[in-house]
Amino acid sequence: MEKLKPRTLSGFMELLPGPQIQMERMMESLRKNYSLYGFTPLDTPIIEAAEVLLAKGGGETEKQIYRFQKGDSDLALRFDLTVPLAKYVALHYNELSFPFRRFQIGKVYRGERAQRGRFREFYQADIDIIGDGKLDIINDAEIPSIIYRTFTDFGLKRFQIRVNNRKILNGFYAMLGLTEKSGDIMRTVDKLDKVGAEMVKAILVDDYGISAADADEILKFIAIQGTSEEVLQALEGYRGRDPKFDEGLTELESVVKYLSAFGVPAENFAVDLTIARGLDYYTGTVYETTLLDYPEIGSVCSGGRYDNLAEYYTDKQLPGVGISIGVTRLFYVLGEQGLLNDSLPTSAADVLILPMSENMAPAVSLATALRNEGIRTQLYTEQKKFKQKMSYADKLGVPYVIFLGDDEIQSNTAACKDMATGEQKSLPVAEVAAFLKAGVAEKTAGSVILEKQK
Amino acid sequence: MEKLKPRTLSGFMELLPGPQIQMERMMESLRKNYSLYGFTPLDTPIIEAAEVLLAKGGGETEKQIYRFQKGDSDLALRFDLTVPLAKYVALHYNELSFPFRRFQIGKVYRGERAQRGRFREFYQADIDIIGDGKLDIINDAEIPSIIYRTFTDFGLKRFQIRVNNRKILNGFYAMLGLTEKSGDIMRTVDKLDKVGAEMVKAILVDDYGISAADADEILKFIAIQGTSEEVLQALEGYRGRDPKFDEGLTELESVVKYLSAFGVPAENFAVDLTIARGLDYYTGTVYETTLLDYPEIGSVCSGGRYDNLAEYYTDKQLPGVGISIGVTRLFYVLGEQGLLNDSLPTSAADVLILPMSENMAPAVSLATALRNEGIRTQLYTEQKKFKQKMSYADKLGVPYVIFLGDDEIQSNTAACKDMATGEQKSLPVAEVAAFLKAGVAEKTAGSVILEKQK
Repeated sequence: MEKLKPRTLSGFMELLPGPQIQMERMMESLRKNYSLYGFTPLDTPIIEAAEVLLAKGGGETEKQIYRFQKGDSDLALRFDLTVPLAKYVALHYNELSFPFRRFQIGKVYRGERAQRGRFREFYQADIDIIGDGKLDIINDAEIPSIIYRTFTDFGLKRFQIRVNNRKILNGFYAMLGLTEKSGDIMRTVDKLDKVGAEMVKAILVDDYGISAADADEILKFIAIQGTSEEVLQALEGYRGRDPKFDEGLTELESVVKYLSAFGVPAENFAVDLTIARGLDYYTGTVYETTLLDYPEIGSVCSGGRYDNLAEYYTDKQLPGVGISIGVTRLFYVLGEQGLLNDSLPTSAADVLILPMSENMAPAVSLATALRNEGIRTQLYTEQKKFKQKMSYADKLGVPYVIFLGDDEIQSNTAACKDMATGEQKSLPVAEVAAFLKAGVAEKTAGSVILEKQK
Repeated sequence: MEKLKPRTLSGFMELLPGPQIQMERMMESLRKNYSLYGFTPLDTPIIEAAEVLLAKGGGETEKQIYRFQKGDSDLALRFDLTVPLAKYVALHYNELSFPFRRFQIGKVYRGERAQRGRFREFYQADIDIIGDGKLDIINDAEIPSIIYRTFTDFGLKRFQIRVNNRKILNGFYAMLGLTEKSGDIMRTVDKLDKVGAEMVKAILVDDYGISAADADEILKFIAIQGTSEEVLQALEGYRGRDPKFDEGLTELESVVKYLSAFGVPAENFAVDLTIARGLDYYTGTVYETTLLDYPEIGSVCSGGRYDNLAEYYTDKQLPGVGISIGVTRLFYVLGEQGLLNDSLPTSAADVLILPMSENMAPAVSLATALRNEGIRTQLYTEQKKFKQKMSYADKLGVPYVIFLGDDEIQSNTAACKDMATGEQKSLPVAEVAAFLKAGVAEKTAGSVILEKQK
């Protein structure tokens, strides 16, 4: 029979068992930490009616979307988790309680040009809080505190959640009479890190017809730096000149105040006036998160406040605030940088039982007993030579191996080998579970990410 | 602005928060129990090259598949998790260790005619063990033992895993000289439950030209019933007439023997000669699982042994054994039958903190402290009247509410209300976590399914 060459599409992550276990650890951490804040897990279809997904229409989205016909239906794969959330909330409005807090971890699809580190299928891990008519500003502080807890649980320490407020930016541009151009200005200012202040000024003046004096004002404004307190104090100097600005500043002050109350240390957040987020629909607080030693990666977790989640589907005013982690990309980047903790076992089993007797029944019973105790146990079933069995155990990377031969069966013991140290000890069968539990707890105690000193 | 009516495609399950929590419990149980057996979690893309997915080609699959062009690529959505596994194992053969044990829980897509209880997007939860060249028969006993543990953990008691072996059936037909017609015969016999013995005989004789005597032999054979031991004993009477039959019988005897060793009680499994599984690629052991009080549902978990997982992609002989739970359909059916345990809390939070003071900081601190203790805590942030706050708590179905007013803040206490009993007690803040943990453990102790007496 002629064989077809097996392949996986480019831009689609498919992990080997070891890395997959590391990925699962990140996923578990996400689920655990998002759940701790009382967010309800949501699972919406990957396929939606194209007109529903594209209600907003236009832009990059439409070009990248996977869209196709099936029978008479015009279908598309979701390209983010926000549009499905908007649909869900509009559709089930009467059955939901507000504030509605949901998290969703799921795959989304964008037919981008395939390139290293860019994925066409990737996981997003989103949290959003949706209000009915109104939503208190304190939620804007809770969201980054969830990210702080999650990242800390991952094992990250050297990260910073950077916060800004679009009303401050819009208010500032209004002061200069540049409201019409604020979109252009923000997109230009967004490039500051990449092209530098000189170039930003040149673009503002040459491309957008802004006076040199105003451009200097803009650059001076976004150059405001320091601790959160210092930045807020500098911003106070602008108060009273534009109501939108004042509103945004008051909001930002609340966010900073409550961020501390939510337990986020000062070194893990900063007020950063250069953050605007490209997307139109953010209207207040905006977030980006950077790994301090890897600024070239860009933001690994972004989001913000929006006034109207579902305006394409409903007249209800549904303000919300949310944030999204691009899990697949983050995982890929962490791997590239060598930050995944390789000292943790990456085998799916805690222990491999190697029967050394014709009589398999005692090995089966021991496996069942260990599983009853919550120990992830694999039973080796094949008739192979000892050397091959050990080579299999090595390849699996399993932390413990148990040998069960006729002698052990006779004496109701088991020979337990710690594969890392090579140490082997004979234990009464009744003591094996406790021994393994303690050992496994120790070996798996580390976090999924291990930061390196730079 | 004109609004677009939000909708979810028919045949796509989208749950409200309460049922979604129940679904998550099933998913957690699946992950936990599959992991206990040392299976490695796998996550393959939902989109594959169409030629890869359809390497086998033909049949119902091709009609139901979601297939589309994107640029120059001919793509398709996976319709099961077995073909992607075959691709994965063939593609990564050199990097895997065998036996390769993997589980995968993921969505698959079939464009079936939409009807009640039929889904176009649904979860499968698969486990498979793949050998390299050979795979011991003991694995055929371990697979149903995993299902036994999983179903028991769900809370099911009245279920039966039914086991057969295709070699026994094929060997039996060979004895009668009916090998050529064995496919037709098995498909006909498969209908026994639905159409009865008379009709089966009529089809065999009229449609397939089988002699009345042979048809009687067939009906007599598949009518062999009783305990597993009785059935095996009856089958021993046929031994020595066909080598394939003898091989199958020996295998089936091993499976039954080890099933007991793996801790599966006699009442939860049975040898059933009517089970053949329609799919061509099963070559030995086959499984079906039925809920004893709901036979009309049919098999909720099926699988078997195959000789050659990846023959379309590689010359390597890769025998395997596996089983699959159609989770979405199972969940739907359990809900329809009222078997989902409604006494378990379906709120995403264990406790809702209702601040009753202008000063939110103590509420934020308490929320942070409870989360540090692993308690899923929601902080209510909106400025609403007391009645509205309580109505929100009721709608969420949260088991505990904490009131934090100025009095409590002053005395460093919290008023904890058990929403089920209505009982409210004032506790020192330091004791709240322990109180909630004990209460939540009690309220969530039940299983996801609660069988009813019939």
